[in-house]
Amino acid sequence: MAQQADITAMRRAVELAARGLGATSPNPVVGCVITDASGHQVGEGFHRRAGGPHAEVHALREAGVLARGGTAYVTLEPCNHTGRTGPCAQALIEAGVGRVVYAVGDPNPQATGGADTLRAAGVEVARGLLEAEAEAVNIAWLTSVRRGRPFVRWKYGATLDGRIAAADGTSRWITSAESRADVHRLRAESDAVVVGSGTARTDDPHLAVRGVEGAVQPLRVVVDTEAGAVKPGARVLDDAAPTLIAIAEDAATPVGGADVVRLPRAGRGLSVPALLDALHTRGVRSVLLEGGPTLAGAFVAAGAVDQVVGYLAPVLLGAGPNALAGGGISTITDALRLDITETVRIGSDLRITATLKGA
Amino acid sequence: MAQQADITAMRRAVELAARGLGATSPNPVVGCVITDASGHQVGEGFHRRAGGPHAEVHALREAGVLARGGTAYVTLEPCNHTGRTGPCAQALIEAGVGRVVYAVGDPNPQATGGADTLRAAGVEVARGLLEAEAEAVNIAWLTSVRRGRPFVRWKYGATLDGRIAAADGTSRWITSAESRADVHRLRAESDAVVVGSGTARTDDPHLAVRGVEGAVQPLRVVVDTEAGAVKPGARVLDDAAPTLIAIAEDAATPVGGADVVRLPRAGRGLSVPALLDALHTRGVRSVLLEGGPTLAGAFVAAGAVDQVVGYLAPVLLGAGPNALAGGGISTITDALRLDITETVRIGSDLRITATLKGA
Repeated sequence: MAQQADITAMRRAVELAARGLGATSPNPVVGCVITDASGHQVGEGFHRRAGGPHAEVHALREAGVLARGGTAYVTLEPCNHTGRTGPCAQALIEAGVGRVVYAVGDPNPQATGGADTLRAAGVEVARGLLEAEAEAVNIAWLTSVRRGRPFVRWKYGATLDGRIAAADGTSRWITSAESRADVHRLRAESDAVVVGSGTARTDDPHLAVRGVEGAVQPLRVVVDTEAGAVKPGARVLDDAAPTLIAIAEDAATPVGGADVVRLPRAGRGLSVPALLDALHTRGVRSVLLEGGPTLAGAFVAAGAVDQVVGYLAPVLLGAGPNALAGGGISTITDALRLDITETVRIGSDLRITATLKGA
Repeated sequence: MAQQADITAMRRAVELAARGLGATSPNPVVGCVITDASGHQVGEGFHRRAGGPHAEVHALREAGVLARGGTAYVTLEPCNHTGRTGPCAQALIEAGVGRVVYAVGDPNPQATGGADTLRAAGVEVARGLLEAEAEAVNIAWLTSVRRGRPFVRWKYGATLDGRIAAADGTSRWITSAESRADVHRLRAESDAVVVGSGTARTDDPHLAVRGVEGAVQPLRVVVDTEAGAVKPGARVLDDAAPTLIAIAEDAATPVGGADVVRLPRAGRGLSVPALLDALHTRGVRSVLLEGGPTLAGAFVAAGAVDQVVGYLAPVLLGAGPNALAGGGISTITDALRLDITETVRIGSDLRITATLKGA
């Protein structure tokens, strides 16, 4: 059994890690708490941005000499390699830390081995404390390492009966103002926000983050297969955030103002794996899919939805477009099965998070 | 501010009231707790079945002489009229109770006035403690009194994207075993369970309560407009519970074995108000609507859905029938808007209860 003090310190480290969401890619989010030899917290830190100091370095700086003989609580196994910053395992050893408790092993073959290095230097090492919580906060990065593509979170807002608009197409506002504000937080935690040509045409969405202090703007991505949906003057073409237009290899060249990537066609759209590969190459580790039912269906058909965040409004319509269309599932045994991992009341709505089994 | 002891006693009374759900119609559910002059609980009771003693009588019997100078906590205003049992207000006065705290006023013009009678006899009376909880436990009866028709709770089980089956019609099992068991509890709390001809044809449902100890079986109702869906040997025709087949006035006479009610047609089915009126006449105060999307749509169109209980499975299908079809809503401003009143994890699913605003 873990001691309560250990749990408290690691819980704080997980909270700290979460502050980095959306800003650290292609790195993971990491939080660190350091206690002195008598168990008092003397330092804390988190990884704030790629290229900046790791969580352990921030925490060690704050702790100074008080780290000697103390314990470091880290949400992820301390790294063993020298990238843009030195290896954290070495920094912990040099600071004289007596014990390192980490939650999740580093799945990255280039960075793993930190625990072994620490043990070889005589540091006591324990793994697995609050592992589930630490996995959850880092799910985007961990999934991206395991699958070699960005983590994809599909967000939708719908009525209790699964409609995203009424039969005549009207949809303002199905979900509450609080839910719409919450979506900006999801965007801020993501490296890229993706919509399709239908949404681009119908809504002319802006897709940038508003109202989240200190947010790093995500890459705005429009899947515009025929290069005809993003018109000159479209709101995604402003300078609030970077924008990428994905078009078919044989499509006409679209209007200027945004980066363009040409991708192979698949079905009536573009290849989802090719799109995710192109985004991964650009450092994107987490994608918020805000597209309509057709694009979401293409991602489901490609096996590329890792998590679903549904904002369910207590409304019934009985007609109108469904949240998800297509997806290639025709019989119940092929249904995409997830686990409900969180439910939260957001204004008058309910936010349900469901995560792919084994994601 | 209510005292904590008052709250504790009334909370217990609400719990007791809930035990009567499904068994007391056409009466309300009522719970009662009696404390002695020093505040110790000396009696409790609830209304178990129509025609049986009221909650106050059960509690007074248990308390005996200890009720003198004590307090009675009742979830509903004590009745003032002599029906099959004597008036409870008089019983409380005769027992020498010094104070009566009740949660909800009696909306029934025949029964109201109990509070006035108590005050006239010198009893201290307070109203409104835990009113919301006591309203919630009695929502079916209160709604039936206010609207002059049974309370209607629509139950459905669906995927996150609102589908009740896959495109090929397969649906076993979208929701979990725990959810399916929970539906039997809903049935046990209802006076009638209603399905349409589509469900009768496709599923040959039994509709009786299984696995709920002491449950009073609900009336099984099949809306079989053309009198062709309930075949000889149908499971609803067994003797596990009473059954009523609702058919059109001009339909052929159906096979024997169940009561039949002939109702006017409306659209492609039967008049929902006429159906509810027929059920109300039979003493039904709460209806569990388990029908498919078409019947649910007819109830929505008739303004006859008071509460929705959705069992949402963390599953995506992307195709297949929707939980609700029709309902006559074509634009967003006409959407049926409810309030989420409860969310509970049931097995791997989420049960969402949403109640009509002002129900």
